[in-house]
Amino acid sequence: MKAEIIAIGTEILLGEIIDTNSAHIAQQLPELGIDLFYKTVVGDNLGRITETFERAWNRSDLVITTGGLGPTEDDMTREGVASLLHEEPRVDPGLERRLRAWFEGRGFPMPETNLKQAWLIPSARAIDNPRGTAPGWWVERDGRVIVCMPGVPPEMERMWANEVRPELERRSDGQVLVTRTIKTVGIGEGTVDEMARRLYGTPGIGIGTYARADGVHLRIGAKAASREDAWARIEPVEREMESIFGTAIWGRDDDTFEGMLRDEFVSRRLTLGVMESVTGGLMASTLTDVPGAADYFKGGLVTYWTDQKIEAGVDAAIIAEYGVISPETAAEMARAVRLRLGTDYGIGITGVGGPDPMEGKAPGTVHVAVADPEGGTSTLSMSMNQGRAAVKRRAVLTAMILLRRSLLGERR
Amino acid sequence: MKAEIIAIGTEILLGEIIDTNSAHIAQQLPELGIDLFYKTVVGDNLGRITETFERAWNRSDLVITTGGLGPTEDDMTREGVASLLHEEPRVDPGLERRLRAWFEGRGFPMPETNLKQAWLIPSARAIDNPRGTAPGWWVERDGRVIVCMPGVPPEMERMWANEVRPELERRSDGQVLVTRTIKTVGIGEGTVDEMARRLYGTPGIGIGTYARADGVHLRIGAKAASREDAWARIEPVEREMESIFGTAIWGRDDDTFEGMLRDEFVSRRLTLGVMESVTGGLMASTLTDVPGAADYFKGGLVTYWTDQKIEAGVDAAIIAEYGVISPETAAEMARAVRLRLGTDYGIGITGVGGPDPMEGKAPGTVHVAVADPEGGTSTLSMSMNQGRAAVKRRAVLTAMILLRRSLLGERR
Repeated sequence: MKAEIIAIGTEILLGEIIDTNSAHIAQQLPELGIDLFYKTVVGDNLGRITETFERAWNRSDLVITTGGLGPTEDDMTREGVASLLHEEPRVDPGLERRLRAWFEGRGFPMPETNLKQAWLIPSARAIDNPRGTAPGWWVERDGRVIVCMPGVPPEMERMWANEVRPELERRSDGQVLVTRTIKTVGIGEGTVDEMARRLYGTPGIGIGTYARADGVHLRIGAKAASREDAWARIEPVEREMESIFGTAIWGRDDDTFEGMLRDEFVSRRLTLGVMESVTGGLMASTLTDVPGAADYFKGGLVTYWTDQKIEAGVDAAIIAEYGVISPETAAEMARAVRLRLGTDYGIGITGVGGPDPMEGKAPGTVHVAVADPEGGTSTLSMSMNQGRAAVKRRAVLTAMILLRRSLLGERR
Repeated sequence: MKAEIIAIGTEILLGEIIDTNSAHIAQQLPELGIDLFYKTVVGDNLGRITETFERAWNRSDLVITTGGLGPTEDDMTREGVASLLHEEPRVDPGLERRLRAWFEGRGFPMPETNLKQAWLIPSARAIDNPRGTAPGWWVERDGRVIVCMPGVPPEMERMWANEVRPELERRSDGQVLVTRTIKTVGIGEGTVDEMARRLYGTPGIGIGTYARADGVHLRIGAKAASREDAWARIEPVEREMESIFGTAIWGRDDDTFEGMLRDEFVSRRLTLGVMESVTGGLMASTLTDVPGAADYFKGGLVTYWTDQKIEAGVDAAIIAEYGVISPETAAEMARAVRLRLGTDYGIGITGVGGPDPMEGKAPGTVHVAVADPEGGTSTLSMSMNQGRAAVKRRAVLTAMILLRRSLLGERR
């Protein structure tokens, strides 16, 4: 089944709102055996909406739209579909009753402009929207389907999950695509590609490599008549990959680095503390983005000023000798925070966020360090120049990679 | 000038990567007097890329593409443009030299697949990309323009800002739209709308209100033959708004709360320290997202465990009496960090990130406090339940709003 997604709204077109709906839907279509070929954004203009609908109607079996179902003159998705199919919209008495009841339940009269939210055309049936006033439209004619959903993400997501996706699943008679993502770190994309190459020919399996901020991902995909059949194809390939990549694999599918570290620390009953300057708190914040972080993460010190570092136990002599921006100071920060907070592991991060250099070091120079329970420290340095926010993010990831390496080393 | 944006890449189409490039560009087109009519996403398929290019070429004066300029077989933007214009790509000797030098500078040989990044067609000239190996293409024929930029956001953003936007500005001969956004906080959207209503009829001016996470924004827009003329229309309306909203206005255009606070603290030679638990470092990280934060922000303590709070000077008796999740503990944290770090102001944040309750308090319960130079404290509480990440972000914003209020109060 060939599908396309159309997002409707001038605010989305002009980038004032980021369109997350399309990605939400797109991610799930492969599992339904539906091929997505295009996504389009069009503003609140009836001519251009209708033109976009016509093209989609001609080339796709399934058209999914979001947005343009509000009560105002700007909302023209219903008009666009009616114009595409040359059908006349009429107020549906049942929908009108429900709409008026919705407003009554909230204690204020329904503005008459809202009445268009009770419209239907002969080829359309309403899709329930308990989170708002705009029902969706399921439009079907000549073997083709248009599904119109509201643009407000919580309304759209509920309608998609409870109404649209199940209906599409029922109709799906074709092949289902199931994927498994294996996440590696520490090996370049070219090498990962070479190491996995002997699996590429596996019948009924597709394998892709993707370079991501948190390492190289391998995605195994299998199409089959059922999810069970697809998983049965993926499983032996996944086992093979585990034997090829070993400890370079740190996670699967939706796993995050911070979630993996939490699991590792908690299962081994270890604790962690961090001292950071260039990342300004982002290290601690990232670690605490996952529920249950409190089970191993005791706390952090954002020692933005040098006197704060010394106050927190960093040896002033080391700063004087090597400078604040040095692997030695990073190591000393990791050691100091481990002692100060009484944790098993400590992380230290120092560097230059930019845009100006510091101590003659270029913006984007970062040194991270890990202090381990045996009193050892390891350090890693990086340098990039893509702006302050990117430097902070990359520095946090570098520290997490080093921490994982230290945890693995200890285990051996 | 009619424009459209095309994002190329299967990963964007399938929602694995959110397309932020299109929004980045779209937001800036109105200022150049360019009307944007469509945004399209198409996967890595030469047939569909070419088809999309053909339609765009026929209906738009300016087509802006992002993505598909990498070195692999999947990257087919150059092929698509060549096929659209029936022109033959050739390796450009100058580009090839630069490309090989780029790899040499990094100490490894250039894979021969990369050579296509040195391609040009007769109608294209290269656009410089100092952040990566893929130059852009500026394609011009029959009075129409296609601009191809890389998909990696930092590369795209730099190319857009330094090369593409200035060139489009030079060519802009039509009406220019200039906008000024006034950012308010502490007043609801309905009230803001009512207060500003008497300005709505101003000739040659459009005014819109937008509810955003950091308050209600008012946008004043003016179209005119030149930027100067447009600004002359906006200016008196902006003055009026200043007199209507007074100190409820906290910023303009691209201003951020953290930037505003930095300016305020630095100009008044004040310093700040924070102690946070539920936000886990995000407060400090947000404050240090702006350059120059070190001029006033001394540091932060992420006291995730209760013993860390007491260690940092929080009175254990207050925690025992009121609980960790209380306005009293937040105020005590703000007081303690101010003393511990020797700053003029202190912020304290405590709460429940979720998903589980703590001390019988629901997830999303947060108390923030500010300690001021006179030894006073003020607190603000919030409660929301939209997941851990949203709670953290909203808590940080609430603390910044309270801090600004305290700064304003002091001034009076």
